[in-house]
Amino acid sequence: MVPASDEIRNLEYLFARLPGLGPKSARRAVLYMLKRPEVLMLPLRDALTDTLSRIQVCTICGNLDTADPCSLCMDKKRDKGIICVVENVADLWALQRIETYKGQFHVLGGVLSALDGQGPESLRVDGLVKRALDQLTVEIVLALPLTVDGQTTVYYLKDLLENCNVSITQLAHGVPVGGDLDYLDDGTITTALNTRRPI
Amino acid sequence: MVPASDEIRNLEYLFARLPGLGPKSARRAVLYMLKRPEVLMLPLRDALTDTLSRIQVCTICGNLDTADPCSLCMDKKRDKGIICVVENVADLWALQRIETYKGQFHVLGGVLSALDGQGPESLRVDGLVKRALDQLTVEIVLALPLTVDGQTTVYYLKDLLENCNVSITQLAHGVPVGGDLDYLDDGTITTALNTRRPI
Repeated sequence: MVPASDEIRNLEYLFARLPGLGPKSARRAVLYMLKRPEVLMLPLRDALTDTLSRIQVCTICGNLDTADPCSLCMDKKRDKGIICVVENVADLWALQRIETYKGQFHVLGGVLSALDGQGPESLRVDGLVKRALDQLTVEIVLALPLTVDGQTTVYYLKDLLENCNVSITQLAHGVPVGGDLDYLDDGTITTALNTRRPI
Repeated sequence: MVPASDEIRNLEYLFARLPGLGPKSARRAVLYMLKRPEVLMLPLRDALTDTLSRIQVCTICGNLDTADPCSLCMDKKRDKGIICVVENVADLWALQRIETYKGQFHVLGGVLSALDGQGPESLRVDGLVKRALDQLTVEIVLALPLTVDGQTTVYYLKDLLENCNVSITQLAHGVPVGGDLDYLDDGTITTALNTRRPI
């Protein structure tokens, strides 16, 4: 029970629903804001209003942007021949940060998961097939996580795209750059060893 | 650099300024919200609007509420004779949760700190003296932290309120209820030992 007015309690409840925040840290965040209404609370409210009214999901790739199609899909400098398939928008942003990749993206919206009851119908698969059938598309890079669910999805997509006349590749997995073997999990070391390359 | 539209970048920047959230967790929170605009983002915006327009600081005790004086100060069932002095509103809420305390509150807004340049003029001290001089006030409980700054403030307030004809007390310090000695810091154990009581 938060001993405060209904407005503050409601605000705390909503903040506590965000990932990374629990009831205690939500209360701390709300109190921090309440002390700075002009410099933090008001700008935050306005930023939410702005985002709510302007941000939409790109119907082509699934990215979040103010325009549909998004600025990435409309960027004429980006290679139309290669599409990188990612699990979610956060992964898309991570890949876009590395400016060496200059192709297209496709947000799947998740991976197949028997445990979570996530089937192909809940993923943006139809759009991907349509894009793979496009004459311009040469390669599809699957940048999905190296988990059981992620790899199940990789094989599912490989089957699905078999007749689309595109080459299907996957990100390399192994020791991270600067990674210390001592701190790596067994799975990563095994993968790195199994896919070792001649120098 | 967040590879997203200005609106999202601004929202992330504002979230990252909240305590407990860094740039990474702010991005995670914003993406989480963007996926649920109707159930989380819109209610959050409305909650901020509500709070901004309705919450104010109580001129008597410094609590945050929709009314001024706040509901605690106006509560006729609460004892007018005893005032509990706390550092901030979070501490006030913590004490109010324990329903055994039925007195008044006074939020100081901080503690004296030479390092942070926090002097008496930045604390709500004048209001406290005025309340202490009130005929109804019998006791002032200082619920300030057992730190150098907190205890400096305790002695400063003790001097200041000396001629106000009120008894000045302090919260007991010692082993927490259910606390395991093995996990307690030396300071707490020393305090508990020095202020030991006959059974």
